[in-house]
Amino acid sequence: MLLFFLCLLPTVLEAQMNDSLTIRRIYDAALTDYTSYRYLDTLCMTTRGRITGSLQAEKAVRYMERIMQQEGFDTVYLQEVMVPQWKRGEEEKARIIPDKGKPVEVPVSALGMSIGTGAKGLRGEVIEIKLISDLEYLGEEIIRGKIVFFNRAMDPKLINTFAAYGGAADQRTRGASEAARYGASGVIVRSMTTALDDHPHTGVMRYADGVEKIPAVAISTNGAELLSAMLKEDKSVNFWFKTNCTYTGETLSYNVIAELRGNAYPEEIITVGGHLDAWDTGEGAHDDGAGCMQSLEVLRLFKAVGIKPQRTLRAVMFMDEEIAQRGGLEYARLAGLKQEKHIFALESDRGGLLPRGFGFSGPTDKVEKMIGLKDHFAPYYCNEFTPGGGGVDIGPLRKPFSEIVLCGFVPDWQRYFDYHHSPNDTFDKVNFRELQLGSAAMTSLIYLVDKNGL
Amino acid sequence: MLLFFLCLLPTVLEAQMNDSLTIRRIYDAALTDYTSYRYLDTLCMTTRGRITGSLQAEKAVRYMERIMQQEGFDTVYLQEVMVPQWKRGEEEKARIIPDKGKPVEVPVSALGMSIGTGAKGLRGEVIEIKLISDLEYLGEEIIRGKIVFFNRAMDPKLINTFAAYGGAADQRTRGASEAARYGASGVIVRSMTTALDDHPHTGVMRYADGVEKIPAVAISTNGAELLSAMLKEDKSVNFWFKTNCTYTGETLSYNVIAELRGNAYPEEIITVGGHLDAWDTGEGAHDDGAGCMQSLEVLRLFKAVGIKPQRTLRAVMFMDEEIAQRGGLEYARLAGLKQEKHIFALESDRGGLLPRGFGFSGPTDKVEKMIGLKDHFAPYYCNEFTPGGGGVDIGPLRKPFSEIVLCGFVPDWQRYFDYHHSPNDTFDKVNFRELQLGSAAMTSLIYLVDKNGL
Repeated sequence: MLLFFLCLLPTVLEAQMNDSLTIRRIYDAALTDYTSYRYLDTLCMTTRGRITGSLQAEKAVRYMERIMQQEGFDTVYLQEVMVPQWKRGEEEKARIIPDKGKPVEVPVSALGMSIGTGAKGLRGEVIEIKLISDLEYLGEEIIRGKIVFFNRAMDPKLINTFAAYGGAADQRTRGASEAARYGASGVIVRSMTTALDDHPHTGVMRYADGVEKIPAVAISTNGAELLSAMLKEDKSVNFWFKTNCTYTGETLSYNVIAELRGNAYPEEIITVGGHLDAWDTGEGAHDDGAGCMQSLEVLRLFKAVGIKPQRTLRAVMFMDEEIAQRGGLEYARLAGLKQEKHIFALESDRGGLLPRGFGFSGPTDKVEKMIGLKDHFAPYYCNEFTPGGGGVDIGPLRKPFSEIVLCGFVPDWQRYFDYHHSPNDTFDKVNFRELQLGSAAMTSLIYLVDKNGL
Repeated sequence: MLLFFLCLLPTVLEAQMNDSLTIRRIYDAALTDYTSYRYLDTLCMTTRGRITGSLQAEKAVRYMERIMQQEGFDTVYLQEVMVPQWKRGEEEKARIIPDKGKPVEVPVSALGMSIGTGAKGLRGEVIEIKLISDLEYLGEEIIRGKIVFFNRAMDPKLINTFAAYGGAADQRTRGASEAARYGASGVIVRSMTTALDDHPHTGVMRYADGVEKIPAVAISTNGAELLSAMLKEDKSVNFWFKTNCTYTGETLSYNVIAELRGNAYPEEIITVGGHLDAWDTGEGAHDDGAGCMQSLEVLRLFKAVGIKPQRTLRAVMFMDEEIAQRGGLEYARLAGLKQEKHIFALESDRGGLLPRGFGFSGPTDKVEKMIGLKDHFAPYYCNEFTPGGGGVDIGPLRKPFSEIVLCGFVPDWQRYFDYHHSPNDTFDKVNFRELQLGSAAMTSLIYLVDKNGL
């Protein structure tokens, strides 16, 4: 028995050594190749504001398709998706109007899917609250006809900013309908960011069925601080804002997909993706141009390093993550319909920032197997492998494929909300090394999954 | 015996619990207080270009002294230091001059302590090399009268950019004198940065004794790539540059020091510091305004959280790290002379970036004891505690205090060289949370050292 293991040992060690060398080669290639970084620059520059359903999103689809074709992947194709088309229209205006003294302009941005105010805008007294439950406490008598100002900051004491985001986002997603139940005429929501800045950070909201639709805007955090301070001085301060957004129904768009066909098990599919749509007020550099280019880079690096995949690798640029998640839903629906065999899906949608690790969800034994791979990533400081994780776009794959492992790439989160959903999300905020360390980590992980199966 | 330990256990657990709660309070205070961040903003704005010996450095000394006094620390004082005074003069100019076609302007910056070229500048043919040893290989016949262009990039494949810096910096520090031994008329050094950018990244150089002094400049990495490409086309390309720098001897400057006096062991001294001088071409935000403000913040957070130190805490803003390290040398000399008792010194001089951990040097048992503290920092993702570490300014304390533990704060290193020694080192590149997570980690470490001794 001992002899048997002693004979096996060199083989096992050799395999580990080969993995370690291959991963090193992946990192070497990633850290010396500027191609994807330049693609991201071009995407940001030429398709700025590529919100779902827009002309810019259409340009982004064509751009990704073209560079995928240039890269010479085995297959490149578009997948039709019907998406909502919401248009911001002319830039918003807003003013704090004190009883005495001059009105002060503040930066606001309509929330995604909000109705507009009409040409005259909306003016009213302001009720500042922190919690949605404060509405019930104050009651309709106080709220009716007023503008509700949700001003609960993301908790700065939380080390994980995504937890802070999760603890504040209800104001944005359902604040308008909750306030409308008490007769509010509109809502202002403090931007979801850990920074004190002058950018409104937008994001999607949803109207509840059967409740009056009222206009909703995000206000910059500095604007929120100012409005709050002025309200402390004088409760009769008015707020006026004008938004010009409209919902114009559904339109045709696309997921953009590239494949490297598997050598040994082509029917087994590994998906890696990010979302191609981005909020219209910025370049969508971190959210999620970076994730798209890192996903593309996984296929590029397989080719660059000369690894022939055993299984089929699919880079998917999902359309419409930000509004209705139609791209992810359609991708999973078609995969289920075609009875494809999906074993693993990885999403990068937390910015092209310093890699920390990966999170996994799926059957316990498979998640444990994945977490067991973390030591390969220690030399690259990307070895925080934890249970739990996935992504908005790959999440729908769970339904048709109950055995699939879903994985979320986890870069550091301290700076992400400086950029998220704001005009500050621009290419110059992306560091080449951080972006490519992420690409290399993703490629290395997929190399191990592809080689060993799941 | 067992009973004895069982009786002790609750006390030990309680102490650990208290530590954990205290550290949590330190982080809470750090993440909600913008004071130091605003101090850094002001320092960057009002003392930009505060190179050792300059009027701006003098202003920085006065500014730090004033805010330390405002903060109400127990003692605030200046420590006289004689420092070199090197002046850049008018901004540099440089051109690549091809045989045919138009000259191309490229960004250069005189290296610190370099002589100037004189009013007409220096023109010559260019010899591009990668290694100092290439000089010997080429020999005097080829090099005499020419400008040597050191173009070895920091190795992008190294995950730790400080290792890459260490592998390239010899070109800058001693390239000029080494080239002068073979008759070179001047040197151009590729900027020490991992980025491809248009900023020259300067830094100190030294002339060897008995070798002719020749002018030396850093060229931006994009400029270096261009020059290299043009030389490949045509070896007769000329380079012209004009620098206006002069060395004007020594002048008086200061370390700026604030103290919180120890309650129980006031004679035992814990130093925490950064350096106040910065390269004159930038704001010195990351290098090292951030380290100064984090050091100040350690004392501020002790006060804010209400921790009375057992030992004396000293925040030191060292003068002249960049050129001759006179501040650090003088601080250690005086500490030795006065027979002070220094037990621990911590330096922050790697930017106000995302904290990773700390490195320690000193007697083995003490270093092990320090590394044993790392679990306290796991909830804050700052638990990479490693042997080896310190800082340029605190290093001289080793001589008078052989038992001292020297500690270097280690933030992530991927972005640091984007800013280092360049006009790109500006306040807008500092993220509040990253800066303050560093301050909190430093304060928490010093809290544990102060409480338990060493």
